[in-house]
Amino acid sequence: MLAEFTIFPIGEGVSLSKYVARSLKLIDESGLAYRINPMGTVVEGEWDEVMALIKKCHMAIREDTERVSCTIKIDDRKGVSGALQKKIKSVEEKVGKKLAQ
Amino acid sequence: MLAEFTIFPIGEGVSLSKYVARSLKLIDESGLAYRINPMGTVVEGEWDEVMALIKKCHMAIREDTERVSCTIKIDDRKGVSGALQKKIKSVEEKVGKKLAQ
Amino acid sequence: MLAEFTIFPIGEGVSLSKYVARSLKLIDESGLAYRINPMGTVVEGEWDEVMALIKKCHMAIREDTERVSCTIKIDDRKGVSGALQKKIKSVEEKVGKKLAQ
Amino acid sequence: MLAEFTIFPIGEGVSLSKYVARSLKLIDESGLAYRINPMGTVVEGEWDEVMALIKKCHMAIREDTERVSCTIKIDDRKGVSGALQKKIKSVEEKVGKKLAQ
Repeated sequence: MLAEFTIFPIGEGVSLSKYVARSLKLIDESGLAYRINPMGTVVEGEWDEVMALIKKCHMAIREDTERVSCTIKIDDRKGVSGALQKKIKSVEEKVGKKLAQ
Repeated sequence: MLAEFTIFPIGEGVSLSKYVARSLKLIDESGLAYRINPMGTVVEGEWDEVMALIKKCHMAIREDTERVSCTIKIDDRKGVSGALQKKIKSVEEKVGKKLAQ
Repeated sequence: MLAEFTIFPIGEGVSLSKYVARSLKLIDESGLAYRINPMGTVVEGEWDEVMALIKKCHMAIREDTERVSCTIKIDDRKGVSGALQKKIKSVEEKVGKKLAQ
Repeated sequence: MLAEFTIFPIGEGVSLSKYVARSLKLIDESGLAYRINPMGTVVEGEWDEVMALIKKCHMAIREDTERVSCTIKIDDRKGVSGALQKKIKSVEEKVGKKLAQ
């Protein structure tokens, strides 16, 4: 399945990149395939491994902050792997051109 | 923490209430405090128990459908319990009137 | 259509109820049918009136804060009105009991 | 502001790329800066131009389908432009390496 998630603390100022970086180090070390975008990170994997990673990221931010927002959007399609690349490729073929990623 | 979630199959027609009902039976049996609304269900609990319930609901819909959409929004505030009631009460006090739930 | 939305400032502390109350006064005055829940507000109406209301709420919070998060989830079903009540009723019939709202 | 959005029909089968392509043609023609990812598209612009584009995409899918799901996530930070690039750059600097986009 694919899961996009976004985790940030509320009440720790307006600059959040140091918290996002904390998450991204954990994601990068996880070994799961991922892609970052300006609003979140998309990972691909099975439910348990994806959710274990999201919990790890959430707890790494929660440990020294008082309130944490976490949003997760899952697209789970049977028998599909490599969706991280395939979904974009399939749309680009239909649009008939390369699109900005 | 509070978690609102919405789970439905894609490609099984436009009427989704039978799938939502399947989720809600599991939520109701879970023992966790919850509130339903027209766009999702909000549950209150610790990370592991909430996520175990969401997985159960997701898998119950996935077992006989091909593609499932699941969105989760978490608000995790340290040292707060009973947030399911408290958040609405606190806002109603500031607005100065009872609001439609 | 139904639209659930959640708007809050980032970096203005952990207590957000005064900002949520600001939104809810505008929603209550709008004349649109709505229901609040612990994670957001669901309104029913046509695209333009719903989006005008969400913009008003967003701007009311943005005017004296530096960074605002706004999430919107829309369910737009042709020929359906009164969905605010109907969706819950339809699920409760299938579950066979009244559920906590 | 940055807005990530995802629009798809419910009940039109499991393959959605032809609908996503319809949206992406409109986004590409809009002239707004954007980035696609496997779970949605992030655009940058002022409230009115971004929302006009999202409405256009939503209505293009709604015209020949019965039910449409649309989710929008907005990050609106005062005085910041070029956030589409800056947010990722700022995180990569803190992580200390290039990340997969």
